[in-house]
Amino acid sequence: MTTLYIANKNYSSWSLRAWLLMTELGLPFEEKLIPFGDPTAWKAFRDEGGSGKVPALQDGSLHVWDSLAITDHLAERHSEVWPADPVARAWARSVCAEMHSGFPALREFCSMNIGVKVRLNSVPAELARDVERIAAIWLEGLNRFGGPFLAGDRFTAVDAFFAPVVFRFETYGLDRSPAMAEYIQHMLAQPGMQAWAEQALAEPWIEPRHEADCLQVGDIVDDFRSIETR
Amino acid sequence: MTTLYIANKNYSSWSLRAWLLMTELGLPFEEKLIPFGDPTAWKAFRDEGGSGKVPALQDGSLHVWDSLAITDHLAERHSEVWPADPVARAWARSVCAEMHSGFPALREFCSMNIGVKVRLNSVPAELARDVERIAAIWLEGLNRFGGPFLAGDRFTAVDAFFAPVVFRFETYGLDRSPAMAEYIQHMLAQPGMQAWAEQALAEPWIEPRHEADCLQVGDIVDDFRSIETR
Ligand SMILES: N[C@@H](CCC(=O)N[C@@H](CS)C(=O)NCC(=O)O)C(=O)O
Ligand SMILES: N[C@@H](CCC(=O)N[C@@H](CS)C(=O)NCC(=O)O)C(=O)O
Repeated sequence: MTTLYIANKNYSSWSLRAWLLMTELGLPFEEKLIPFGDPTAWKAFRDEGGSGKVPALQDGSLHVWDSLAITDHLAERHSEVWPADPVARAWARSVCAEMHSGFPALREFCSMNIGVKVRLNSVPAELARDVERIAAIWLEGLNRFGGPFLAGDRFTAVDAFFAPVVFRFETYGLDRSPAMAEYIQHMLAQPGMQAWAEQALAEPWIEPRHEADCLQVGDIVDDFRSIETR
Repeated sequence: MTTLYIANKNYSSWSLRAWLLMTELGLPFEEKLIPFGDPTAWKAFRDEGGSGKVPALQDGSLHVWDSLAITDHLAERHSEVWPADPVARAWARSVCAEMHSGFPALREFCSMNIGVKVRLNSVPAELARDVERIAAIWLEGLNRFGGPFLAGDRFTAVDAFFAPVVFRFETYGLDRSPAMAEYIQHMLAQPGMQAWAEQALAEPWIEPRHEADCLQVGDIVDDFRSIETR
């Protein structure tokens, strides 16, 4: 029995990584969604141990938390998690770990909110630097390993790790080269990405704190969610 | 041929992780130290690709950067990197990945500076929360897996990931329970930790920016470095 704990699909970028990886690779799991606005559910979840954050995986008797730990835990039994080619795998591990511990401005100013479009008023210098590094990583991967995924011709963990960035590029209309636009379109067309986005838009929850996060660099100019927000 | 790029031993906490892991496990490597104050050396290093940050590993033709990616890259051929027991391994992966992407207050307010002692004037609430979580992680590991290392009776990646925290506890005199104090002493007695600290104290470089980082929460009250700093 494998259970993946996640939070709101509209907002929870770290949850998306683990959920998408397992979904795209066809690894079976039961999903348990803990809405950000449900303190009772969070308390019960935190009482189970770990960091108290999502995603978390209950794999039989093993409790694993953090999207990167879940990834490497799954990779022990599923060799398709990472690219098979050693060069692509070393690269994929490097950029996933770099993404995991970096990009604070992208996280702060472009928090994930799949249901809306934000018109940017300003791009802080730190954000511009983060976006520039994303562009360099994507182009390097696509050029070196031939696309259409970041590390070659199939979906691997590195695509899961940059999936939240794909949604952020859409929400905030961030500048992209034609090759980046092609990667974004390719990712948005994957069944797991489509299912996640559809379920995100159908969620009945609006979180004021997460909504406010979006307003640091622009204005919300469109809202595709099914819930009435205004 | 395996080359590990690192920066100043006195300050570079991310470098310490990879260096200590390889040193304690006896994996051979050549060390290339890029001093923070040497822009020419940094430019040459950045021109080789990757994130431009240290640690970075050149392993034959493979270039791997980021301490966590280096760890999992090494684990492919060296099973002793992670604990052998599946429960301990799942736990170790989880807390390493949690450490990798979290603890911003500990990083900001207690930046690594092995050569000095800082007397704390204040402990910001975020820092107190980070320290509390460190305590919970260490005690959980020591209790569940029996010590004297975090995941059992031998040094693994999880000890390497918390090694910078061990030095920070010493520099900033952070509060610790007896079990934590015992773990800190045990770590400080490891040959790799002793070698790193000794080489850090012997370095001829003082970095004003890194020195200033230490002064956010206290005053430098002792300096054990061999260089004349005042
Ligand atoms: N590094 C962690 C980060 C997890 C994280 O911050 N998750 C957020 C949701 S996206 C969370 O659980 N927040 C609830 C809380 O902090 O209490 C990972 O990769 O899984
Ligand atoms: N997540 C990375 C962080 C590496 C990092 O930030 N390294 C610092 C030195 S401790 C660095 O290279 N700084 C130089 C720079 O940013 O230009 C890792 O684990 O290796």
